[in-house]
Amino acid sequence: MKTVSDIARRAAEAVNENRLWQRHIDMAEIGATANGGVNRQAFTDEDRRGRKLFIEWATALGCTLAIDPIGNLFARRAGRDGEAAPVVTGSHLDSQPTGGRFDGTYGVLAGLEVVAALNDTGIVTRRPVEVVDWSNEEGSRYAPGLMGSSVYAGALELDKALSATDRAGNRAGDDIAGLLAKIPRIARRGFGLAAAAYVEAHIEQGPLLESAGKTIGIVEGIQGARWFEVDVAGEESHAGTTPVGRRRDALRAALRIVAALEAALLDAADTVRFTVGRFEVLPGSTNTVPGQVTFTIDLRHPDETLLERAARDIHNIAAATAPPCRVAVAETMNARPIRFERRVPDLVGQAAAVLGLSAMEVFSGAMHDAKNMAGHCPTGMIFIPCERGLSHNEAENATPTDVAAGARVLAHVVTTLAEQD
Amino acid sequence: MKTVSDIARRAAEAVNENRLWQRHIDMAEIGATANGGVNRQAFTDEDRRGRKLFIEWATALGCTLAIDPIGNLFARRAGRDGEAAPVVTGSHLDSQPTGGRFDGTYGVLAGLEVVAALNDTGIVTRRPVEVVDWSNEEGSRYAPGLMGSSVYAGALELDKALSATDRAGNRAGDDIAGLLAKIPRIARRGFGLAAAAYVEAHIEQGPLLESAGKTIGIVEGIQGARWFEVDVAGEESHAGTTPVGRRRDALRAALRIVAALEAALLDAADTVRFTVGRFEVLPGSTNTVPGQVTFTIDLRHPDETLLERAARDIHNIAAATAPPCRVAVAETMNARPIRFERRVPDLVGQAAAVLGLSAMEVFSGAMHDAKNMAGHCPTGMIFIPCERGLSHNEAENATPTDVAAGARVLAHVVTTLAEQD
Repeated sequence: MKTVSDIARRAAEAVNENRLWQRHIDMAEIGATANGGVNRQAFTDEDRRGRKLFIEWATALGCTLAIDPIGNLFARRAGRDGEAAPVVTGSHLDSQPTGGRFDGTYGVLAGLEVVAALNDTGIVTRRPVEVVDWSNEEGSRYAPGLMGSSVYAGALELDKALSATDRAGNRAGDDIAGLLAKIPRIARRGFGLAAAAYVEAHIEQGPLLESAGKTIGIVEGIQGARWFEVDVAGEESHAGTTPVGRRRDALRAALRIVAALEAALLDAADTVRFTVGRFEVLPGSTNTVPGQVTFTIDLRHPDETLLERAARDIHNIAAATAPPCRVAVAETMNARPIRFERRVPDLVGQAAAVLGLSAMEVFSGAMHDAKNMAGHCPTGMIFIPCERGLSHNEAENATPTDVAAGARVLAHVVTTLAEQD
Repeated sequence: MKTVSDIARRAAEAVNENRLWQRHIDMAEIGATANGGVNRQAFTDEDRRGRKLFIEWATALGCTLAIDPIGNLFARRAGRDGEAAPVVTGSHLDSQPTGGRFDGTYGVLAGLEVVAALNDTGIVTRRPVEVVDWSNEEGSRYAPGLMGSSVYAGALELDKALSATDRAGNRAGDDIAGLLAKIPRIARRGFGLAAAAYVEAHIEQGPLLESAGKTIGIVEGIQGARWFEVDVAGEESHAGTTPVGRRRDALRAALRIVAALEAALLDAADTVRFTVGRFEVLPGSTNTVPGQVTFTIDLRHPDETLLERAARDIHNIAAATAPPCRVAVAETMNARPIRFERRVPDLVGQAAAVLGLSAMEVFSGAMHDAKNMAGHCPTGMIFIPCERGLSHNEAENATPTDVAAGARVLAHVVTTLAEQD
């Protein structure tokens, strides 16, 4: 009789690098951009086509599909014990507007590869294995991000999520209804079904693994993230006639605020992540002093105390720096830092060791659906390097070898968890 | 027999404050915005309706109308000498996207009021008087501004103007063709017809007259204006994972450039006008480090040497401050400062004195169609105060008394010029 360790190893070794890589190439054709990236934003036609391809692949692998009312899509491979809670793995197929081919996609395709590897070796695990495509992880069109997993985990009310609107005035609920109507009829399920464990494979989206020359990141936790929207109100006036001393230039005020925050939040260790990503200036006419600026702040760090202090800085510095303009700061998201319980990270470390892959512990700089699952069941993540640490960029890249290595670790960990009580 | 001075005075005194003010109220209904301003951008349906009202009024006053291929619209009141070149007055009826009720409109309506006052007093001047509505002065949709008067004066080729496109991809030529097809049939005329003189009434669009407590600005000239478009190219990356030290954040680079330019161009006398009016950030996603920023610079000053030095500063500082991002600076307009020959400004000063109105010499901070006319014939402008110096703003305001006072000076000057050889 084989031990769990033997079975897990067989599954890992059955991971097929070419098959997994080809799936990345095929999926990247959906929403492909001229610069080699993808634009497959949540609930668009591209998202629908990505889901359709996922459904085809999962069906061909013998999986049963199910979808919930926020659009989370599950492909289930049956286990020996029909009553046992599944081990869940996956990530998301939606992308940034100018996103890359691996962010999210990798975790979903690696999950399918685990199913394929289990099929190839004829292993039937005790627990079912489910591969999930979480709905609207990026939140680029409809805020907040992590929408699907947040609703699944009870951190966001379904009605609130469905009533989110994009900048063109579309409603997420309408888009989801349209999307569900267009994909082949599959079973509906509710939220928060029991899961034995959750493991998510992902590109690191940062430079640490590449810099250290390691293949596998054993993810300890996810840093906290707080989002703010800052509205600066000045006064429109004529660019040719209004002396600086009489202007209430919303752009200049916004620039002062951002510069003061950059200075205040600079740390020698370069661990604070402070980003102004959206910055909109009205009326946007060459010869009119801007009367209105709206910008966003994305602030992240693993230490909650530091985040708390930085959030106070944002409010105080904006208020002190804006005059003669007026400013309003609204916090739109506060995701606390989390640490995963050690069960899954330890299995990740052991799998890497067994498979002879170099590994290191890392903290996730990016937000992931695993954050929502961490309160729900034992959870962990597996990172692989990405070229120059670039992500949220059409040039995002990873090597076929690393992609396969991460999937082998995932197969090992998922198989182990699926055999455990 | 009456002297020219008597006739001019009679015309000035016949200016009807209520009639002129009511025309402002009526015209402001076309393109009226919720905040009390107007949005009557060039070649839109609102522009067409504004022109239609102008045509109705001018026709009722007995004028003959003519339009040229760029859409400059002329209302001619006949003189005694059918061969004499006309005295031309007017301004523009198009507005900024969030413009005010007086910018441009005042000069056109004051011109009609001069015609009405001449009619009321039965004066027939030697020269014809023409009231012009210059086409696309603002340039908000189709660059460059001063489009109509530039083509008229030969400073811009008609074909180039017609081929201008807006951000939605529309072509100015198509819009103008559509506009011409929709307004009542009026005579066509060519460009650059001889003019005996040009006088333009306008709100100051700055705070000088109000601060000094003067009613009439005798405009000496128009400061120079140079426009630049600055493209900053960085690299999109993930907001949560990318350390500051590894970012090529196009927004931060653009902020550094603007801050360095603000510092370099600051002058104690507060005469340099440096404005960043359009500032567009891509991809504009909260959790993506911006990879691209495009912004405009509007730089103005009466002294050409200073402008030349400032333009060099813009190129040098952008290049020095942008790294690790790349930057490209393109100059999109270079309008040299001009001084009006003294004939018209002297008449403006004399008219103010005769009419008992307080006056001061001022330099125009804003660009005006008078700039193009200055190379064509004796030219001048009459400024009146505007509330808090505000313009290019929906709250733009002027008092009925000042509006009438400026029109009286205009009537005096136009009548005098129309009697002269």
